[in-house]
Amino acid sequence: MAYHITPIGIPPDSRRLFEENYALSTQGSDRLFLMAGDQKVEHMNDDFVGDNVSSDDADPENLFRIASEAPVGCFATQLGLIHRYGMDYKDIPYLVKINSKTHLVGSEQRDPLSRQWQSIEQVADFIRYSHLQVVGVGYTIYPGSEYEPAMFTEASRLIYDAHQRGLLAVVWAYPRGKGVGDREQDAHIIAGAAGLGACLGADFVKVNPPINARGETDARLLGEAVNAAGRTGVICAGGNETTSKAFLQRVYDQIHDGGTAGCATGRNVHQRPRQEAIRLCRALHAIVVDNKGVNEAVRLLG
Amino acid sequence: MAYHITPIGIPPDSRRLFEENYALSTQGSDRLFLMAGDQKVEHMNDDFVGDNVSSDDADPENLFRIASEAPVGCFATQLGLIHRYGMDYKDIPYLVKINSKTHLVGSEQRDPLSRQWQSIEQVADFIRYSHLQVVGVGYTIYPGSEYEPAMFTEASRLIYDAHQRGLLAVVWAYPRGKGVGDREQDAHIIAGAAGLGACLGADFVKVNPPINARGETDARLLGEAVNAAGRTGVICAGGNETTSKAFLQRVYDQIHDGGTAGCATGRNVHQRPRQEAIRLCRALHAIVVDNKGVNEAVRLLG
Amino acid sequence: MAYHITPIGIPPDSRRLFEENYALSTQGSDRLFLMAGDQKVEHMNDDFVGDNVSSDDADPENLFRIASEAPVGCFATQLGLIHRYGMDYKDIPYLVKINSKTHLVGSEQRDPLSRQWQSIEQVADFIRYSHLQVVGVGYTIYPGSEYEPAMFTEASRLIYDAHQRGLLAVVWAYPRGKGVGDREQDAHIIAGAAGLGACLGADFVKVNPPINARGETDARLLGEAVNAAGRTGVICAGGNETTSKAFLQRVYDQIHDGGTAGCATGRNVHQRPRQEAIRLCRALHAIVVDNKGVNEAVRLLG
Amino acid sequence: MAYHITPIGIPPDSRRLFEENYALSTQGSDRLFLMAGDQKVEHMNDDFVGDNVSSDDADPENLFRIASEAPVGCFATQLGLIHRYGMDYKDIPYLVKINSKTHLVGSEQRDPLSRQWQSIEQVADFIRYSHLQVVGVGYTIYPGSEYEPAMFTEASRLIYDAHQRGLLAVVWAYPRGKGVGDREQDAHIIAGAAGLGACLGADFVKVNPPINARGETDARLLGEAVNAAGRTGVICAGGNETTSKAFLQRVYDQIHDGGTAGCATGRNVHQRPRQEAIRLCRALHAIVVDNKGVNEAVRLLG
Amino acid sequence: MAYHITPIGIPPDSRRLFEENYALSTQGSDRLFLMAGDQKVEHMNDDFVGDNVSSDDADPENLFRIASEAPVGCFATQLGLIHRYGMDYKDIPYLVKINSKTHLVGSEQRDPLSRQWQSIEQVADFIRYSHLQVVGVGYTIYPGSEYEPAMFTEASRLIYDAHQRGLLAVVWAYPRGKGVGDREQDAHIIAGAAGLGACLGADFVKVNPPINARGETDARLLGEAVNAAGRTGVICAGGNETTSKAFLQRVYDQIHDGGTAGCATGRNVHQRPRQEAIRLCRALHAIVVDNKGVNEAVRLLG
Repeated sequence: MAYHITPIGIPPDSRRLFEENYALSTQGSDRLFLMAGDQKVEHMNDDFVGDNVSSDDADPENLFRIASEAPVGCFATQLGLIHRYGMDYKDIPYLVKINSKTHLVGSEQRDPLSRQWQSIEQVADFIRYSHLQVVGVGYTIYPGSEYEPAMFTEASRLIYDAHQRGLLAVVWAYPRGKGVGDREQDAHIIAGAAGLGACLGADFVKVNPPINARGETDARLLGEAVNAAGRTGVICAGGNETTSKAFLQRVYDQIHDGGTAGCATGRNVHQRPRQEAIRLCRALHAIVVDNKGVNEAVRLLG
Repeated sequence: MAYHITPIGIPPDSRRLFEENYALSTQGSDRLFLMAGDQKVEHMNDDFVGDNVSSDDADPENLFRIASEAPVGCFATQLGLIHRYGMDYKDIPYLVKINSKTHLVGSEQRDPLSRQWQSIEQVADFIRYSHLQVVGVGYTIYPGSEYEPAMFTEASRLIYDAHQRGLLAVVWAYPRGKGVGDREQDAHIIAGAAGLGACLGADFVKVNPPINARGETDARLLGEAVNAAGRTGVICAGGNETTSKAFLQRVYDQIHDGGTAGCATGRNVHQRPRQEAIRLCRALHAIVVDNKGVNEAVRLLG
Repeated sequence: MAYHITPIGIPPDSRRLFEENYALSTQGSDRLFLMAGDQKVEHMNDDFVGDNVSSDDADPENLFRIASEAPVGCFATQLGLIHRYGMDYKDIPYLVKINSKTHLVGSEQRDPLSRQWQSIEQVADFIRYSHLQVVGVGYTIYPGSEYEPAMFTEASRLIYDAHQRGLLAVVWAYPRGKGVGDREQDAHIIAGAAGLGACLGADFVKVNPPINARGETDARLLGEAVNAAGRTGVICAGGNETTSKAFLQRVYDQIHDGGTAGCATGRNVHQRPRQEAIRLCRALHAIVVDNKGVNEAVRLLG
Repeated sequence: MAYHITPIGIPPDSRRLFEENYALSTQGSDRLFLMAGDQKVEHMNDDFVGDNVSSDDADPENLFRIASEAPVGCFATQLGLIHRYGMDYKDIPYLVKINSKTHLVGSEQRDPLSRQWQSIEQVADFIRYSHLQVVGVGYTIYPGSEYEPAMFTEASRLIYDAHQRGLLAVVWAYPRGKGVGDREQDAHIIAGAAGLGACLGADFVKVNPPINARGETDARLLGEAVNAAGRTGVICAGGNETTSKAFLQRVYDQIHDGGTAGCATGRNVHQRPRQEAIRLCRALHAIVVDNKGVNEAVRLLG
Repeated sequence: MAYHITPIGIPPDSRRLFEENYALSTQGSDRLFLMAGDQKVEHMNDDFVGDNVSSDDADPENLFRIASEAPVGCFATQLGLIHRYGMDYKDIPYLVKINSKTHLVGSEQRDPLSRQWQSIEQVADFIRYSHLQVVGVGYTIYPGSEYEPAMFTEASRLIYDAHQRGLLAVVWAYPRGKGVGDREQDAHIIAGAAGLGACLGADFVKVNPPINARGETDARLLGEAVNAAGRTGVICAGGNETTSKAFLQRVYDQIHDGGTAGCATGRNVHQRPRQEAIRLCRALHAIVVDNKGVNEAVRLLG
């Protein structure tokens, strides 16, 4: 597990705020329970309607309701949404997702590119005017895309600037593009992406669950990425939809077998009926933050 | 119907102006009657001459004459035109359309790209020198275009900056490009675009009327988009030319069956003889702003 | 004919200068006689040597000599040339042509793109140091080019900034590119380009002479463009080389049948022996500025 | 061997710092022993796991441990990593590698492009806040790539700015791209790249070992590059993995037969078990800095 | 021959410096003897080693030694080299070559693009700190390249800014690209390029020697270019390697038959043994600056 030490380049005036933001988002542990809510752009409306999706999820406010009532470390979404709902959800620790793209242009058509939406000055102004608890920023990179140089430059400068202002920086690192092909979930490639996140200066790097040669996920495959990221914490997406118990087991294994420093979950939470989603978050919190076992967590599902 | 709450990131010094601009453009309702007049670039001269177009429409001043005499919430056009006619039409609430492109380069040739024409500082200077009532800015995005990253970045920064200065922001969201293909009017894709507008921070998002699998429009198809946009109001374009009564029925249905927060109309209004166009605007105003029924509105057609 | 009204966004401090520049370049009329001298880049040396070209024209100073002795409204050329000859031709009203490209890369190879050479600050500094009469700036757009977004953005910002400083703005609007094909001189497309110039904020828009379905020019075809441009004056290029009298008749017809607000002429003037060129300018001035008939103008040819 | 003279454009206020940084990194000699640790991006995790790689190397901290205990002239890596580990390794002379790309997009797919990650202002701020010994910056160029103009511009400005602030500048110069083909290690092409580094203003230029027509490396082939670089010192990468003794002989030959001003080594050092890596660095230091022979150096391997 | 007049846009505070730089580089004549030393990037190491190249030329310092001992008007090379050697060669009048590219990417692969390396502010800082005699800047344009817009913009702004600071501006104008094809040396195309240089504001424009339909060079072919450039002086590259006497005759003819305002020479000088190179420069100086005949110049070859 990543042992957190405040990075050395943070200016003296910002160290206290950085450490407060770290403590707030990791909830006093060294692990991050990140609720990802950037899918309204990344997947447009695909994740919010459908046979297996609760009708609660059709309204974007559902994300805020869950994040407000559930013990998440931070809720990551675009600034525009926070701007529109934040006044009614002031207690949520927010992570501003700084870049996003739709999935309408597939990798087979053109290598992925996602660009910065707001400058860090705009984010800082937003914090000043809104008085919201914004703990940090998030940025997606696609290593292996022909456009990776543009994203690496934006990410590294953004992370630098965020740290200057005492904000955390989380990198979503998804190898993708013609140069990656079908190796998007290859454990070794994902480890490379995790190390890349560390070199960019990220505090946490979010990766997809690696699979082995037979196409199966196995939490132990995360070990290489966790090693490669060093002091940068690795958090893993939850993967496909599954039962709550199986999902909790998977997160538990990622942490204890894989060595991750928390989890990132989106659809697996918000597509459920809201109260069920909130209970699942409580169970995840038990595992990630309180270091409980799966059985103890399952009892919180009610 | 979207219930408006002033977004949280607007600076204290700009909140009053923002709320005034909101009240002015929604005319004391929570709905927007937007008169779209950006077609001189978007469609060049196609919309202003022709067998079914009144000769009044050949002169760009026609747009200003209608907007001045008719009770529109705001009149959206390029700054250059406002600059040239505004001194004679000081009572119009203007919305500056910030980006525009021609239709000469079709999507089959190259995915659409429309770039920002003026900086927000230039718009602010213009307001200061002209003393005109500029209530906000508009920007078109094409989700699914290979160039969506450039437009998302410009839109998000523009909207942020507009809000800082107390201006409204309206996003025209038109899915288009090789990655969209023939799904431009698919209800689910349009819902995604509407949600994207919310994530960008738009106060209102303008979409095209969705169609069902049989290619028919149906106001109820807008429901998904209205849900997806949450507190961002959805307004719908009027669709093809039709009789005044059928058009009023369509807008009524969009509002009452579809849940939209107003309407956007362009050609359907300005291509008619001017007095007829003005009467049609009065009827639209009755439905959109005064919440009247279709029959009552039809009586205003004279 | 366009009736000129000073645009509303010009700052109070710059209105007087703007109106002086307008009066100077239109010579007290509402029409502009623009002498175009940007061909040394646009056509390289093709227009300056050849069997039908006077040997006077081989030297760039020829353009300045003509513009100095002839009653032109403004002489449009690149800043570099003005920089080199202006000290000897201080009485010319100059229009700085801000962008130019060569014709070496044809449209069939790549859609046209012409980019801004100087910033408006550089132009303003130049005016301050040179004390020359620079009445405005010019910019070429190619609607229908795949690169139109870059040019529309530059043009709109440049025009805005020029107006802020009391300078006129003239747009050269030439539909061109794969999306335009052989419709470069189509009257309807040209009308669209003229309207586009108005939306960009131009004071005058220069278009090529439209042709009808049989490939013939007819001044009446300009009517649609003149209507579409509204208060922005349309000026037309002179077309192919012809006799002086036929050329004067053509310009007369453009103004009186087509409704243009002046003319733009380049090769038709400067390729003639210098004294003949000057006399032709006097004749053009009679028609454009003094509103004389063709016969009266012809007498000035001597 | 390059005889170092402080370049003339360094401002008087920065000369002392520049000379201190030069003395620190060359350890009082005129040669540079550069430990390259930028592979976590350049090669992702390929260099840090595998059959021939010590398990020490899986953790990025391994690089810092070696650089701290071994007598290297400078340790080159990305700012993000220095930010995360620097507080525990304050005695290392760091060189910030300013640009990096992954190897996922191969040259056959697209010519290489690597862009600047941090501005020099960000590096300067980092130095001020961290109090670390940052002796300079590094930048990779790919002469022969279709994107070389972007990299040459960034490199030249970065080097200029680094010198203004008293920092050294090292250029990694790797000819690559469709225009280079299989000539990446051609001695003449590499000499051109070395000269290019000098023209960009680099203090040292790192090249790959040239090979002759038979595909063999030969230290004497470096002579052309050393001549071409003039007063800019050439340092050579170590080449393929080999035994420690053979490696030391190769570096010795590069210096004494090829005339290089030091060496750059990465994988050849850090993939060995840590104590072995440190001993190898001591042996390299003996050759590069203390000007010892191979046999004397070999004794330090223990 | 171009008669020099200080351009009008130069600020009063900079006129004296501009005139001093002009006098220094033209050595009291109106002609420029430019020693081109930018080939270490443009041709990499091709010009500095080889059977017909003196071994003196392998070291970049050779260029400085020649320029220091020979009576050249200015020595053009990249700032990085001047930075490294200038302290030992303070008497040379330097021209900073601002952009350069390699020849590894041929025109058949991709149209040429060469971008600006330093900003004019960086050049100005360099002058202030180095106290060197930098008389001006140079920039290469490739008219006919698909990338000409980027280069025209950079060149025009750079030239403007250089003049603001009292520096001369020399444009290397080489028609090249798919749109030019085999017409790179066509006299008419070269004349267009020369005129283009004048429109960009250049004080001198360097062109390649034109050839006639039979592929032969003839100094008289330069006449069209000299006319087209007007008050901007044309200087011509020396062409292929030849005997010293033939070379002197060629330069003499360019000046007296072609009307050029000097010469630009690179390889023809520096590839010779150094003392021979210096003597050749003295002979060139006799022709270019002292207006001597060929026989008198030949005597200086010793």
